[in-house]
Amino acid sequence: MKFSCLQENLSRILNINNRIISSRISLPVLGNILIEAKGGRIITSSTNLEVGLICKTGGKVEEEGGITIPARLITDYINSLPNNRIDFDGDENLINIKCKNNQASIKGIPPTEFPQIPKIKNKTLVVIDPKELSRAISLVAFAAALDESRPVLSGVYWSSSGKKLKLVATDSYRLAEGIIDLKSEIKEEWKFIIPSRSMAELNRILMEVEEPVEVMVSENQVWFKIGDIELTSRLIEGTFPNYEQIIPQTYQTKATFATNDFIEALKRVSLFARETSNNVKITLSKKKGIEISTTASQIGETSSEIEAKVEGEEGEITFNVKYLLDVFSNLKNKEAILELGGRFSPGVIRPVGKEEYTHIIMPLRV
Amino acid sequence: MKFSCLQENLSRILNINNRIISSRISLPVLGNILIEAKGGRIITSSTNLEVGLICKTGGKVEEEGGITIPARLITDYINSLPNNRIDFDGDENLINIKCKNNQASIKGIPPTEFPQIPKIKNKTLVVIDPKELSRAISLVAFAAALDESRPVLSGVYWSSSGKKLKLVATDSYRLAEGIIDLKSEIKEEWKFIIPSRSMAELNRILMEVEEPVEVMVSENQVWFKIGDIELTSRLIEGTFPNYEQIIPQTYQTKATFATNDFIEALKRVSLFARETSNNVKITLSKKKGIEISTTASQIGETSSEIEAKVEGEEGEITFNVKYLLDVFSNLKNKEAILELGGRFSPGVIRPVGKEEYTHIIMPLRV
Repeated sequence: MKFSCLQENLSRILNINNRIISSRISLPVLGNILIEAKGGRIITSSTNLEVGLICKTGGKVEEEGGITIPARLITDYINSLPNNRIDFDGDENLINIKCKNNQASIKGIPPTEFPQIPKIKNKTLVVIDPKELSRAISLVAFAAALDESRPVLSGVYWSSSGKKLKLVATDSYRLAEGIIDLKSEIKEEWKFIIPSRSMAELNRILMEVEEPVEVMVSENQVWFKIGDIELTSRLIEGTFPNYEQIIPQTYQTKATFATNDFIEALKRVSLFARETSNNVKITLSKKKGIEISTTASQIGETSSEIEAKVEGEEGEITFNVKYLLDVFSNLKNKEAILELGGRFSPGVIRPVGKEEYTHIIMPLRV
Repeated sequence: MKFSCLQENLSRILNINNRIISSRISLPVLGNILIEAKGGRIITSSTNLEVGLICKTGGKVEEEGGITIPARLITDYINSLPNNRIDFDGDENLINIKCKNNQASIKGIPPTEFPQIPKIKNKTLVVIDPKELSRAISLVAFAAALDESRPVLSGVYWSSSGKKLKLVATDSYRLAEGIIDLKSEIKEEWKFIIPSRSMAELNRILMEVEEPVEVMVSENQVWFKIGDIELTSRLIEGTFPNYEQIIPQTYQTKATFATNDFIEALKRVSLFARETSNNVKITLSKKKGIEISTTASQIGETSSEIEAKVEGEEGEITFNVKYLLDVFSNLKNKEAILELGGRFSPGVIRPVGKEEYTHIIMPLRV
């Protein structure tokens, strides 16, 4: 194996590969990145067995070959080098690296021991703008369940119909639905569930790229191809709950307010809610707008009011402030809407201006 | 108690007070900040029993009084408020806070249970420029011992003579000496040892202030007065080692090099030294300049060369790379000097341009 490439190109893809590597690995080779020089390109691969990543960059390949080397060491070392040409040579057990006045030799594990990352074998289902997909993931994925007692709830449900792509997640206490408008109609309807951790890994990549995202899917695997980066994830088996029926279609009280004012007030009140299971009471009234309050018997009590346009009946409800902060801190819209259907009915949150996002939070019964 | 003040003024001093509070407190009141309204000023005090801090800000006092309240809660809450007037009223058990549309009541502990912070009772020994003191502390304090098996080594030794103030710290593997030039001569010679943790707390304050630092000292206590902030610390009893005799007066090899080049090469090589007790070999030669290298039997080996002007004999030595990074990452000078007196003699590091700083590192015998 003998090849060379530019430091900044290799550094970029190694950092992407390195991020998905788990700190708790069951096999040493899973802590490694596979580096291959093949067909005039440098290919780096990593996997945590749930997500696999294959990245490519240009280089000069004099002799093809590959090796797997410790991910953090090679990433940190390449990051630390000056932005010059780097020369590599070696075999499947040892790689020599030279860059200006710096050299290193790193021991590795042969590529044959590296787990196979599933290759794309299906045609592209849909092409999505990376910024729109990133925004939808940011608004939806956090609502998935962290524990895997009901596996389908630990994922993000993707479904298509016509020119719309829906992403939905719920942990049964809250539900988030994001709709992406597609440029062209999707002929066949499809649906699948992707682990929310895989969505988070994809989102970190999306934040750095400009290229459109191609999505491919098989019975138990999904692929995202973004330029020279390919992320693949397992799918979650099972049927996603029939969630549409729980989205309230009417409201008793509707408040429209500035998102930032609400976030600041929530943060203030949340300081006192640390010791009361994060309970905060939201009171909507035509005169006072929105009052957010909490009483922590040990430390005291607090309330903050913000201006809001309140329509319908006046009302109050108790929410977990953490759930409110999760959704509002991801909403980028200046204004938002909160709709209530009574103290024990789910609250509905929507951004003002775009109708493609709906968030539902179950109230706390206090 | 009834007073008011501006959010930004109170926020500033509460953040300073809050930082010194230990996360492991032996008494609930030690997790609190004492807030007093007295003589037209708002006074906030906190202590971790080693360091005490008293800060003052202007306000309007209608009724004098005081209360101690949980440090993190009050600091975070005041930080979260808009920059407006805040009104306080209450007694020694409960304080009510109002600021625009926000209100809170916080339960507290009466000031009588708060430990007394020693009051200044001596005249000013010396007045120091805050930036110069901050720089000397940054260059010296990290060399103190972290453990307290020999208490004098866990502190920074202060001594005066003429127009010079010396700060010295050593953990017996390395030693740092910084000299501050004073504007006026100190009449009487004095010396004392301040815990390095207290120096670090002082330094965080120095980085944010412009006012000169007045130093006062008693038999077992030191005070630093910086504008409206007073920090006091206990002194460490005992005699500091007679360190001057171990600073080498001659050298066999002297290298002059760009500080940043050296830091970057150290960081590169240190990646491989993680698994070899942080050993790195430094080789000085007239032809190659400085070579930094390490061999980690498990993972591989590496070396980096940087340009340097090498005078005297060629030489090599092994150091703990962490110790080198500690000193060089604090040196702000563009160029630095490394002097060696042989493989088993301490290495001497100095910045080029200013002679007020000397750092000594004992080599590793490998």
